[in-house]
Amino acid sequence: MASAAGWPLDERGVAYGDGLFETVLVREGTPQLWEAHLARLARGCKVLDFPLPPRSALEHPLTQAGQELAVLKLILTRGSGGRGYAPPASPTPRLRWQLSPFTPDAARWQAGVRVRYCRLRLGLQPVLAGLKHLNRLENVLARGEWSDADTAEGLLCDSDGRLVEASCMNLFWQREGRLETPRLDRCGVAGTLRSVLLECLPIAEVDADPDVLASAEAVWLGNSVQGVWPVARLDSPDGEPLHHWTIGTEHRRLQAIAHDLLGYPTRLDD
Amino acid sequence: MASAAGWPLDERGVAYGDGLFETVLVREGTPQLWEAHLARLARGCKVLDFPLPPRSALEHPLTQAGQELAVLKLILTRGSGGRGYAPPASPTPRLRWQLSPFTPDAARWQAGVRVRYCRLRLGLQPVLAGLKHLNRLENVLARGEWSDADTAEGLLCDSDGRLVEASCMNLFWQREGRLETPRLDRCGVAGTLRSVLLECLPIAEVDADPDVLASAEAVWLGNSVQGVWPVARLDSPDGEPLHHWTIGTEHRRLQAIAHDLLGYPTRLDD
Repeated sequence: MASAAGWPLDERGVAYGDGLFETVLVREGTPQLWEAHLARLARGCKVLDFPLPPRSALEHPLTQAGQELAVLKLILTRGSGGRGYAPPASPTPRLRWQLSPFTPDAARWQAGVRVRYCRLRLGLQPVLAGLKHLNRLENVLARGEWSDADTAEGLLCDSDGRLVEASCMNLFWQREGRLETPRLDRCGVAGTLRSVLLECLPIAEVDADPDVLASAEAVWLGNSVQGVWPVARLDSPDGEPLHHWTIGTEHRRLQAIAHDLLGYPTRLDD
Repeated sequence: MASAAGWPLDERGVAYGDGLFETVLVREGTPQLWEAHLARLARGCKVLDFPLPPRSALEHPLTQAGQELAVLKLILTRGSGGRGYAPPASPTPRLRWQLSPFTPDAARWQAGVRVRYCRLRLGLQPVLAGLKHLNRLENVLARGEWSDADTAEGLLCDSDGRLVEASCMNLFWQREGRLETPRLDRCGVAGTLRSVLLECLPIAEVDADPDVLASAEAVWLGNSVQGVWPVARLDSPDGEPLHHWTIGTEHRRLQAIAHDLLGYPTRLDD
């Protein structure tokens, strides 16, 4: 199910990636973490300086959702424009959407995942940091670094070597009993699950280099669509194993709180 | 004049800016600096890892060009894809084009231009540096920093404070008689006019901080569509004047060589 039309030739979303997107878990027609998605979209519109459509327009696709679990992808662009980077003085933003059936990977919730470090480093761009904008070539290149099905995700550092995120998930770890996640004020996407977890748990946003994971008692990846995956193994960019974690009760607490927010199972076996 | 269709809803060019573009000056049906444009497009396809269309497809739009001066904009994307950053294993790249009449700004060739420093700093991304890819939000934000018609361009530094380029033109200067331009191995777009000038003139690619311009005898901006603009005045991000240059014979040499390459006037008065 999707909005009827595609994109016109002069769409600035294609020309410059001049827009934003949201990927929303929809359960029985109800968008999960919807306020957090709307808040991030509003922040993006403010930074890019074009108007946020009315809530009714953003919620219209939900009228098409059935009872099954689905993912709603919203793309909001600055709309049409002439040649040249200068934003039109009075842009008419364009909203398109797609609604797709979705089944989460329950095996990954249960057994945890294997991840690897990516070679690609994220550039620093504080003005755009945290936003889910359409300039995502770094993520595409990072995701292109592995093709084996055993590797679930890739961890990314910034150009200064600090840990940031995974290619499409946020990163969390526990060290000496404390929950931590990388600060996202220079690059990276501030996930909606991350933002809600930060509100309800004592998770510290930190500057950290990759060494921190070696001393972590538990590591997780999470986003608002997939839920939370415990990390069982971390590999080098060549796929050589660097660290292993035994998935235990330590991992289940953060996962249970996140899954409760998303309507996913909260009681998983160790 | 344009390729008939727009873009489908699942176009990765919109979703992730997953593609490349070229903006080509077309004179009497002949694309100027065409080999340099094709070479940059080929480099981009190699980095993004999708096939370059055959030359005949890239040149097809030229059959629609009349005798008047025009700009051909080519956009080449990875094409359609599902949800998720992972590039399709066998992408079918999509090519779209627009051909528009064009009149260069002869007054800027003659009198030179006023430019300003932008506040925005470009993030470092060596993998994508030099390419004309579709992730151009930094350029859009930079171009949004001024709206007065007296300011022709904005100069950009990278996140380490080094000079890189202008929002849609490359930067050149002369210092102690030597021609220099910023290295573009960490960020920025390597313009086709710049690449051809580097082949035919002793222009040094340097790491330089903005101070270098204070001691420059001449400063220019140039690209393959507009030709070369001498810089007459450089402002702060607030529009406060920092430096002035008197446009003289010093400026006309580089301009004449560039304009000869593009078929623009080579003899301009001082």
